[in-house]
Amino acid sequence: MLQDLPFDIASLHAAYASGTDPRDVAAESFRRIEAAGDPAIFLHLVDPAAAAAAAAALPPFDPVAYPLWGVPFAAKDNIDAEGCPTTAACPAFAYQPSADATAVAALKAAGAILIGKTNLDQFATGLVGVRSPYGFPRNAVDPLIVPGGSSSGSAVSVARGLVSFSLGTDTAGSGRVPAALNNIVGIKPSLGAISATGLVPACRTLDTISIFALTVEDAWAAFRAAAVYDRADAYARPFDLAPLAAPAPTFRVGVPTPGTRKFFGDAIQAAAFADALDALRALGGEVVELDFTPFYDVAEMLYEGAWVAERYAAIEQMMRERPEEVHPVTRAIIGKAEGLSAADAFRGFYRLQALKRHTDPLIDSVDLIATPTMPTFYSVADLEADPVTPNSNNGTYTNFVNLLDMCGIASPLAARSDGRPGSITLLARAGKDAQIAALASALHRRAGATLGATGWALPAAPEAATVAGPGEIALVAVG
Amino acid sequence: MLQDLPFDIASLHAAYASGTDPRDVAAESFRRIEAAGDPAIFLHLVDPAAAAAAAAALPPFDPVAYPLWGVPFAAKDNIDAEGCPTTAACPAFAYQPSADATAVAALKAAGAILIGKTNLDQFATGLVGVRSPYGFPRNAVDPLIVPGGSSSGSAVSVARGLVSFSLGTDTAGSGRVPAALNNIVGIKPSLGAISATGLVPACRTLDTISIFALTVEDAWAAFRAAAVYDRADAYARPFDLAPLAAPAPTFRVGVPTPGTRKFFGDAIQAAAFADALDALRALGGEVVELDFTPFYDVAEMLYEGAWVAERYAAIEQMMRERPEEVHPVTRAIIGKAEGLSAADAFRGFYRLQALKRHTDPLIDSVDLIATPTMPTFYSVADLEADPVTPNSNNGTYTNFVNLLDMCGIASPLAARSDGRPGSITLLARAGKDAQIAALASALHRRAGATLGATGWALPAAPEAATVAGPGEIALVAVG
Repeated sequence: MLQDLPFDIASLHAAYASGTDPRDVAAESFRRIEAAGDPAIFLHLVDPAAAAAAAAALPPFDPVAYPLWGVPFAAKDNIDAEGCPTTAACPAFAYQPSADATAVAALKAAGAILIGKTNLDQFATGLVGVRSPYGFPRNAVDPLIVPGGSSSGSAVSVARGLVSFSLGTDTAGSGRVPAALNNIVGIKPSLGAISATGLVPACRTLDTISIFALTVEDAWAAFRAAAVYDRADAYARPFDLAPLAAPAPTFRVGVPTPGTRKFFGDAIQAAAFADALDALRALGGEVVELDFTPFYDVAEMLYEGAWVAERYAAIEQMMRERPEEVHPVTRAIIGKAEGLSAADAFRGFYRLQALKRHTDPLIDSVDLIATPTMPTFYSVADLEADPVTPNSNNGTYTNFVNLLDMCGIASPLAARSDGRPGSITLLARAGKDAQIAALASALHRRAGATLGATGWALPAAPEAATVAGPGEIALVAVG
Repeated sequence: MLQDLPFDIASLHAAYASGTDPRDVAAESFRRIEAAGDPAIFLHLVDPAAAAAAAAALPPFDPVAYPLWGVPFAAKDNIDAEGCPTTAACPAFAYQPSADATAVAALKAAGAILIGKTNLDQFATGLVGVRSPYGFPRNAVDPLIVPGGSSSGSAVSVARGLVSFSLGTDTAGSGRVPAALNNIVGIKPSLGAISATGLVPACRTLDTISIFALTVEDAWAAFRAAAVYDRADAYARPFDLAPLAAPAPTFRVGVPTPGTRKFFGDAIQAAAFADALDALRALGGEVVELDFTPFYDVAEMLYEGAWVAERYAAIEQMMRERPEEVHPVTRAIIGKAEGLSAADAFRGFYRLQALKRHTDPLIDSVDLIATPTMPTFYSVADLEADPVTPNSNNGTYTNFVNLLDMCGIASPLAARSDGRPGSITLLARAGKDAQIAALASALHRRAGATLGATGWALPAAPEAATVAGPGEIALVAVG
């Protein structure tokens, strides 16, 4: 029964190996979207006939040559897909792109089938997911809490099993916070690993397209397929992304000292993080406590300092000519840039450079850093009462990451004692994506967490990778 | 006779080995300054008694432990030296520093004796050397041409043999253009190799203290002594600076295509550059012609784009409160930043990043790049007629270097056919300082050029370096 088929890639590929037609899987994706009953997840759906045609046009099933063969996916609506408008959740900003974003094209070339474009905090500014004139997607796990943003629709569509994976974006944490709030995996790639060609910029120097999936393995497969070095993107950098391997048997993992952990009174979240540290130790981690103050100092610069001017630069014409078309909360945040001079911008860079003198030795003292993905949970009602403070708090453990040129992954852990989703974020210097993903996979498997809000079980660990691509070393992935 | 003693380090150290007293050398430096009859070279002289005391306080002569033992030097007056005011050539800006700049302290620790602080284009903004309210130093070679700037006094003081070496600074070419105009060597170090602690910023992200000397060997010795990694300077980076070695026997050297060389009608300079390419070939160079257009595109951003805001940020209070105290030409240039927003600054970074996609492959296609140091010579009268255009033209081959994070060295060549000093600039990615210095030394020796305006001959090639310091490889330096 297709209706019961888990949409993780292993399950899909097993079905395809048994003769399932990818047109039927695409149709099933549309059926599930309809059945989900939440019109605010997607802002635009691909014409089902066009999706079926894309499925029919796939080459013969070959999951080695086409690792995403027949895999349905969604893209955040600040990423171009030919034939769909790009809105960035601002109707007045909408345009019809002439081509797929480079990342979307790469995914399609790997066999993936685009199903639709997802809702977001307008102009990717926010971590809550409720700043959209199109309404907001309900959180997949608990409709009372916010879905998380800015990649709200991308996270919820995966968490509800509507698509196998999705593209989000991450400038301040938009690829991690919604993952944690919806019990799924979010990869925040190293800056430049995935092309930003065809992406509406938020902060051009910090933006990266990100990946949501139900499992680390699926997210990694999509990331590898999407990560095509793109000379046309001035910020692109080449990274060698090997297949997912086993994590290092021992490692040093930096965590905030107890005195510099922030949970805003959420004792359950604090306890869940302590449990997560035990899990890290069980997997070979030596936990090293770091005074997190300089990371918080960096984080504050993202919205209080010069970088808000990047958001302004991206939509300056609209802010000048049609400010009323911008969401009022978004307008208030981005409008702060209007008073910032170029000299202010440089002073911001000087301060960041100075702060790196404090963060660099901390980062260099460990193999990776582990934090909660966010300090606590906020309800939709909390955001109605105060649209800014909960959003800022959500960025506690994410806002410094892009400014410090780090990669990250948010991975589900066992549910908290109150049933809310558990999550951890692993961070490292750009280029160490594979190392933190390997550990995230082990943590996820150890926790035995279910997948998003689907009720599906984590699939068996993949077979050892026996076929290595050119320039790759064959590695064994273990659960 | 001390009056006839060349002030290159080899000659000085030979004199010291024969019993010369460093107090007498310091006194001779002051005598030469007085005899030079140009009160606009130095803005402040160290008290001769204090300099004599510093000389007397030196440890026993040991040129290995103290490579600058007893060597008189000057510092541009935007670099702090305890006991001397720092003016940056703006009387209203002057302050009394409480400590030596880190570089000055490092030079003193290596045995060097500070003689005074030198004149400059105000706030190190300019390449001509005539933008100072204190008057301007006469060019050491030909008083009709400009001395070059902004490090005018530092270059002239070395070229006239008043001191052995001097500190300048280089943001746009201020460490190279005055070297070429005065027939001396100018090292523009990789950004961060020499600490900027105690330096009045021009463009904080691009500034480096630079070195002037009569020979590459002397400049390299001073550079090595000054280059102390300084964690207190947020832009400092550690570089391993080995003793000067022999140049590579063969190398690929990029040069502008004939069609993208700029001489502003100076056929003699064009011919001199063609001769310089023959010299490079004779030393093993394979000359590779590069379309220089993208380098010029980068160069234009330095004063036309966002980076002028760094100069503004450095003196914002004065520009707001006492603009009349700023040199009118300088004020006009830096004042352009007043209309620049933070969004403009980011747009500048985006453009630079995009341009790097064009310059990076060119830089990577060769081992180093060779250019004229400046396209032509301008007279003092030219600058009186137009204070801006000749200055801009002077930066043709220098303005892109710091924006592209390159190191450089300007080295004298044989005099041009009209007797004006010949010069070449060698450029490479940051960290390749030693490679280009080695080649510059070979070019200088091959040209047999005289030293500055002193009439002194180039000293014999130093003995092979037989004593390697910790972490260094002993290398043989050949002429």
